[in-house]
Amino acid sequence: MAISTSAQAASAAELAPLRTQIDAIDSQLVELLAARAKVTAEVGRVKQQYALPLYVPERELSLLKARREQAEHIGVSAELVEDVLRRVMRESYQTQETGFVCCREGGGKVVIVGGAGALGQRFASLFTRSGYQVVVLETADWPNATAIVADAALVLIAVPIHATLQVISQLPPLPADCVLADLTSVKAAPLQTMLAQHNGPVLGLHPMFGPDISNIVKQVVVVCHGRNADHYQWLLQQFKVWGAVLSEKTAEQHDELMQLIQAMRHFSSLVYGVHLAEEHADLPQLLELSSPIYRLELAMIGRLFAQNAELYADIMLSSVAVTGLLQRYQHRFNQLSHLLAARDKAGLMAEFAKGQQFFGELAGQFLQESRRLLQKASDERS
Amino acid sequence: MAISTSAQAASAAELAPLRTQIDAIDSQLVELLAARAKVTAEVGRVKQQYALPLYVPERELSLLKARREQAEHIGVSAELVEDVLRRVMRESYQTQETGFVCCREGGGKVVIVGGAGALGQRFASLFTRSGYQVVVLETADWPNATAIVADAALVLIAVPIHATLQVISQLPPLPADCVLADLTSVKAAPLQTMLAQHNGPVLGLHPMFGPDISNIVKQVVVVCHGRNADHYQWLLQQFKVWGAVLSEKTAEQHDELMQLIQAMRHFSSLVYGVHLAEEHADLPQLLELSSPIYRLELAMIGRLFAQNAELYADIMLSSVAVTGLLQRYQHRFNQLSHLLAARDKAGLMAEFAKGQQFFGELAGQFLQESRRLLQKASDERS
Repeated sequence: MAISTSAQAASAAELAPLRTQIDAIDSQLVELLAARAKVTAEVGRVKQQYALPLYVPERELSLLKARREQAEHIGVSAELVEDVLRRVMRESYQTQETGFVCCREGGGKVVIVGGAGALGQRFASLFTRSGYQVVVLETADWPNATAIVADAALVLIAVPIHATLQVISQLPPLPADCVLADLTSVKAAPLQTMLAQHNGPVLGLHPMFGPDISNIVKQVVVVCHGRNADHYQWLLQQFKVWGAVLSEKTAEQHDELMQLIQAMRHFSSLVYGVHLAEEHADLPQLLELSSPIYRLELAMIGRLFAQNAELYADIMLSSVAVTGLLQRYQHRFNQLSHLLAARDKAGLMAEFAKGQQFFGELAGQFLQESRRLLQKASDERS
Repeated sequence: MAISTSAQAASAAELAPLRTQIDAIDSQLVELLAARAKVTAEVGRVKQQYALPLYVPERELSLLKARREQAEHIGVSAELVEDVLRRVMRESYQTQETGFVCCREGGGKVVIVGGAGALGQRFASLFTRSGYQVVVLETADWPNATAIVADAALVLIAVPIHATLQVISQLPPLPADCVLADLTSVKAAPLQTMLAQHNGPVLGLHPMFGPDISNIVKQVVVVCHGRNADHYQWLLQQFKVWGAVLSEKTAEQHDELMQLIQAMRHFSSLVYGVHLAEEHADLPQLLELSSPIYRLELAMIGRLFAQNAELYADIMLSSVAVTGLLQRYQHRFNQLSHLLAARDKAGLMAEFAKGQQFFGELAGQFLQESRRLLQKASDERS
């Protein structure tokens, strides 16, 4: 049904003053956000001065609760208000992240082995902005390694996974109270090697994020205790000041969980991407037909291929246990594929029921969660 | 490093007035959002009156551009401002979605076959709120079908995929100018069957979203033309008024793309979920260690199992072509699995390179896109 010219003119005349009002409101909104940013920058300065963590869950929750109540009272969506405030708070974490309090008396020297890599650089920046003296130790600096580590408070291993064990066992002797720690995606073997190499404090860390995230507030860091935990409390405190959420696991627990969280996921995405490639799938057409949910699913596959092939290969090849897990995965893939080939609908639905039982109520929660997120993805589209 | 009691008191004294300021600003923000909602509700009324689409990309873009410029001018993050405004605009689409203009002269009767199902209900509501008389035709109503369709302007098939062809071929004769359309996830066979069953206007539609989304603004609907397109323009216009993005494809193009977008994706998630279940993976522990990216990856699998098992089985079994595609998928899965078992790192990296080449620049875009989305996911966590 086409709209007549006169109706178009009439609707434009009615919409224009309303749009002017909206623009005026939005302009005030921008000014408010600017005013808020000034105050939160001041909060950041106070927090730095007193070594307070950036992220205080209780304050967040009480702030949100008060505004939700106000929203309900005056009849605007409480969910909208919460979403907007959460986005605004994220910004304030980022603007507050210019410098951090130093959690070690007098700061000290942090040697990052492999510090020129992406994750190493990320931590070099964090330590520097927290008042430490950061020295990067790369292959070329190895002849001077003994002198470089002589007065180190922390030696942090941030080399590719396949080089980790060798690098650790080549370390020169470290000062007795120097903390030796690593950031590798597997933990059992590096931790053992560090304990064998150094008699002082030893700590295994696994930051569960890539170097691409904008800040580490709310990101999980797995902590595997090695030795002399009282000597590296300052380091754990430092991670908390940066906003990380620490999760303590044994190295073995960690490695078993990582097979499921990382290796299996990476393998699955790798096969999926290769299959699309070899099918010569028409990407522009796929994207044209993709509602937010399908676009997101494709993005979760595609993003793998913008990342480090060797890191992912190393994670998949990191242990015999991973190989076993992935072989059982292959076996199940083949079983389900046979059900398909036999057009066994009841069999497929029975497999589906296994997943339903396994995820239980979480499946519904995930659906809700992804739906909320997809609404945000949908905001992006224009 | 513990903080002393006096330092705690001092920091609290400095933070308190700043937090009071923040609360005052946030309170003004809530009031502004309420004021804006009133104006956009008025915009919605005008748009309804003149049959204007809810979603006007040009207006969105010019609004955002003006506010980004203001933000840059006064020194607040333009990205923050854009994110906040996009979220606010989404809300305004939702509040505007109470009623819609009717795109067919005099409205008319819409018969939804299978209208008691989730997707059928979704459309029953949309048509009702657009001024049509909606009648649901379920199995029990079949004896009266002839009478029910006798004065229908549209008969819309919204039954489960496995029942579609049978239901279409059992339809009683429809009025000559009645539009016969379906919402099935496959298109070639239903479209053929509709063309054989009815001599009047025929149209295949595939809404690329589940019944769980809150509104269909910006969602893709695939349009497969059947016959007498001029007689169903009102229906396409109606979808546009609801905010949908229409994408025209032949039924064959659609079905081929859906194998990749739907069947392969569902199969992949099904196997993954079954594998996790049979490994007795410890879900609470997995979640504890999951940074936003891993939580999202798990959520994208788990959400499948909150949905309709039979629908997904039907999509996977919908054609011989799907079976062939999934068998090639299985073949590639096995090939990559052999590389792993042989610990062939170079071979795995070569496969990775195929994916890199296939996704090209899109891989990086997806990484950015998912990163932005994950920041939003991270906002949620507390």
